[in-house]
Amino acid sequence: MSLHDPTPASGTAASGTAANGTTASATTLRGVGVSPGRAAGPVVRIAEPLNEPSSVPAPSDPHADIERIRPAAHLVADRLTIRATTVEGSARSVLETTAAMAVDPALLSQAEKLVSERSLPAERAVYEAGNEFAEMVAGAGEYLAERARDVQDVRDRIVAELLGVAAPGPPEMTRPGVLVARDLSPADTAGLDPALVLALVTEEGGPTSHTAILARSLGIPAIVAVSGVLAHPAAGVTVDGDTGTVELTDHPVHVEASSRPEEREWSGACHTADGHPITVLANIGSGTDAQVAHRAGAPGVGLFRTEFCYLAAPEEPDVAAQRAAYAEAMAPFTGKSVVVRTLDAGADKPLPFLHASSEPNPALGVRGLRVAFERPAIVDRQLEAIAAAADDTGAAVSVMAPMVATAEEASWFVERARTAGITRAGVMIEIPAAALAAHDILDAADFISIGTNDLAQYAFAADRTLGALATLNDPWQPALLRFVDTLGRAGGEHGKPVGVCGEAAADPLLAGILLGLGATSLSTSATALPAVGTALAEHSLADYRKAAQSALSAPGPDQARQHAREVLG
Amino acid sequence: MSLHDPTPASGTAASGTAANGTTASATTLRGVGVSPGRAAGPVVRIAEPLNEPSSVPAPSDPHADIERIRPAAHLVADRLTIRATTVEGSARSVLETTAAMAVDPALLSQAEKLVSERSLPAERAVYEAGNEFAEMVAGAGEYLAERARDVQDVRDRIVAELLGVAAPGPPEMTRPGVLVARDLSPADTAGLDPALVLALVTEEGGPTSHTAILARSLGIPAIVAVSGVLAHPAAGVTVDGDTGTVELTDHPVHVEASSRPEEREWSGACHTADGHPITVLANIGSGTDAQVAHRAGAPGVGLFRTEFCYLAAPEEPDVAAQRAAYAEAMAPFTGKSVVVRTLDAGADKPLPFLHASSEPNPALGVRGLRVAFERPAIVDRQLEAIAAAADDTGAAVSVMAPMVATAEEASWFVERARTAGITRAGVMIEIPAAALAAHDILDAADFISIGTNDLAQYAFAADRTLGALATLNDPWQPALLRFVDTLGRAGGEHGKPVGVCGEAAADPLLAGILLGLGATSLSTSATALPAVGTALAEHSLADYRKAAQSALSAPGPDQARQHAREVLG
Repeated sequence: MSLHDPTPASGTAASGTAANGTTASATTLRGVGVSPGRAAGPVVRIAEPLNEPSSVPAPSDPHADIERIRPAAHLVADRLTIRATTVEGSARSVLETTAAMAVDPALLSQAEKLVSERSLPAERAVYEAGNEFAEMVAGAGEYLAERARDVQDVRDRIVAELLGVAAPGPPEMTRPGVLVARDLSPADTAGLDPALVLALVTEEGGPTSHTAILARSLGIPAIVAVSGVLAHPAAGVTVDGDTGTVELTDHPVHVEASSRPEEREWSGACHTADGHPITVLANIGSGTDAQVAHRAGAPGVGLFRTEFCYLAAPEEPDVAAQRAAYAEAMAPFTGKSVVVRTLDAGADKPLPFLHASSEPNPALGVRGLRVAFERPAIVDRQLEAIAAAADDTGAAVSVMAPMVATAEEASWFVERARTAGITRAGVMIEIPAAALAAHDILDAADFISIGTNDLAQYAFAADRTLGALATLNDPWQPALLRFVDTLGRAGGEHGKPVGVCGEAAADPLLAGILLGLGATSLSTSATALPAVGTALAEHSLADYRKAAQSALSAPGPDQARQHAREVLG
Repeated sequence: MSLHDPTPASGTAASGTAANGTTASATTLRGVGVSPGRAAGPVVRIAEPLNEPSSVPAPSDPHADIERIRPAAHLVADRLTIRATTVEGSARSVLETTAAMAVDPALLSQAEKLVSERSLPAERAVYEAGNEFAEMVAGAGEYLAERARDVQDVRDRIVAELLGVAAPGPPEMTRPGVLVARDLSPADTAGLDPALVLALVTEEGGPTSHTAILARSLGIPAIVAVSGVLAHPAAGVTVDGDTGTVELTDHPVHVEASSRPEEREWSGACHTADGHPITVLANIGSGTDAQVAHRAGAPGVGLFRTEFCYLAAPEEPDVAAQRAAYAEAMAPFTGKSVVVRTLDAGADKPLPFLHASSEPNPALGVRGLRVAFERPAIVDRQLEAIAAAADDTGAAVSVMAPMVATAEEASWFVERARTAGITRAGVMIEIPAAALAAHDILDAADFISIGTNDLAQYAFAADRTLGALATLNDPWQPALLRFVDTLGRAGGEHGKPVGVCGEAAADPLLAGILLGLGATSLSTSATALPAVGTALAEHSLADYRKAAQSALSAPGPDQARQHAREVLG
């Protein structure tokens, strides 16, 4: 449903006769559909995290406890390495990285030290050392926040090994099923055979969560923020990603797979059915990402996040180090467009050298370009490094600033970019006030790029990480589409490009609506590129415009999706 | 300046010849002007809080330390009580309440217990007991957050007494001066003689801070978020509240007072110079507030905050208790309009019985009406109590919900209000998406009321409590005015009232602009009512409309203020 739980969320009704001939009851729960399609099958649960191991009793022979740690860690690493050989691409690299983390020397020495110096049992020592490590990684900012989760995963696997219990995470699947979990981490899913996963259902998470991104890249249905699904002892489940409905039964249901999009080669070229050219670009956050995007056929980069460059060191990297890092990411795109977003840090994504103070609401704090107002030299050095890397690689580089609120801020940034020799400078539109100031901002900037994830969060005053507010962060919310409409019109009047680089652009159906609202380019993760690029060729621009107007006038996100589908067939 | 510090914030320049004949230098700092006018005079500093007293060494004779606590507390209480007799009205009641707090039996017993059980020195014991008490009070929500500050003030006064040092807070003023402080608490200012305070300057704080509210009610200039002012050893200061400029000199400057508005009797009736009637109502948060507002001439209540009723008890108050509390506040307004806002609680304003979980960004969390989606019985009981209190008092009661994001949420609330027998039901507009959905919301609701404080915070993605982002929360920001314009037009098309109940309505100049943008009523604190009510009679509605259009087109808040002043003379 589109209102976050104002009406009773579940109902129990007799649902006819089950496969075994007895009358069984079904429970319907609702959440937020984040990837469309319909599927059914047995429930495959992802185990909840382990309980925290106790710090007592102290080991009677600490040396014996110390000697148990490394073998357990190596067993965990070996299992992950073996699983890595059974999969390909990014899933393989996730598993390989996680395996390496399990035998990280710093992690293991710290655990051993906690046994010898604080007399903790081996399980507790690994648990605490893992926590310290995860906190350190999480403290390094948004870019590494998911890595912190991987560290916790590794921690729990080693602890489970030491305790002699089953490892957390999904069981090895041998037949098709629907994954049900609190939330999904990359590690939870990296080892799964995508062909066996029929759908994803999570109790928490939002439209920009890993679950949503994964489901769309696999082309399977997914529903997040399904309150109560974990507590239900269902054996079978039917998932409707279009309506956000989950039907749970106490008996297994027949396997029903959604029709997946065919695997398609994608050239990177993109046009609507009537030949109107469209630019679909990649979001990247490192040199590795750049290579993956290039291989996926991306004709350029619409959002290059630069935080990775700052996370490695305790001090601000110097211009030469930044130049080299940016050049590595630009290298595959010689002669092609690369839009670099300047540093986006703050109290929620702290960097040691910025000395950010704690804030009651970090998402509403001094982050993004705001950090640079007090420390303009930081952005100047970054712009200098970006300009140099552009020269080094021959990429057609432009820059844009995050968290711009007013036209005055936009001008301030654009002038600094021009001074650094970068001729094309724009700003992200992710703050509602900036959307209302679009005309003044477009007087100053060469282009705008809409960050739908943050724009939704601020426009609805709804933290995008809260499952309880997932509906408000649904990128199909008509008020969010109205913001895009306003921005698309403003861009058209000024004859300047309007990009979209939030998760909204990764939804093939919504991508067409964004075009219809006036977006001139879309940028998304490399995994979503082929699906979006090929889907956009299916209809004419006139149809996308018609569908967009229909979605705009819908009373809620579900109806907007429905309207779009009706127009586009 | 209107951009939060992108250009150097201070400059030092020779400023001619000082009174003593030597050449002196002046430093100009800039902040956010929150109350207009120009004044100059000697700097009167409000002492920074005391350092945290040490917990060592343990007292050699704990009993002696225990015996020092009560006499010190009673001395502090006596001094506050004496100061209370020198002032009147709300200043007196603040001082009397603070005096009572200083000898609170629970506070003193806890301090004594900490000496005897944990061997803390008396100063440290009072400090810790005061902290526990303050945290408990702060945990009870926004309504009591300022009280927590009063507890800290009392704690510091007792600690200072025990240490034999000067009490924190402002020195007793005997001649006119400009108060300079980190931020001002009600206790800081309650004992001051308003006739001697020429202006207020604070290093932190924002446009909705106590400093801003106080300055406007006194009619003196004020500038907040003046970075660097505390560190400057100035003796004299010139304050320009219109431009946000503070000029600091190392020599005293001649006293110059701003021209204060005359003390005027205000009948509560209000119309523009051309006879167009306007409704100016009061914001209240308790029965006491209601009496104060009634005495100030308020013809009704535009915002009745109901949190006070929930804060007293650990459990939700039953319908009878709520009914009695609401009736007390409605009683002075028999036959007059009272707009009741339903409970606005959340992780930032937690109530024990709501069991709110912690959230990374409480301002973007499950607060306001969102709490009711999962617990509709709470809002139903409140609506029942409001309807009964309306019957009891004969007040013309309507209700409105806080934190509404979509038309669907608005309908949900309005239906529940109607079911409770309340015929007039509206919603607050404080979320940007709701402003964009104004037409759909006005289809469902009988009226809307714009909460400019939160709307600014979300529209600019700028925490309203952060001094660093005070400029973005300036209610003169043109993008905020654009939201009001959109809402005013929507109200006009639907023929439904559009109120404004944020701090913006307390600024007499801005009040006229809000009218010009289509607001049909304004609601503000009782202290600001006479100034706003009489100021609005000075110009015609056509002039307010012209000034509003001029302010709307300004590039920033300073220019918007300037444009408005030019049109309105």
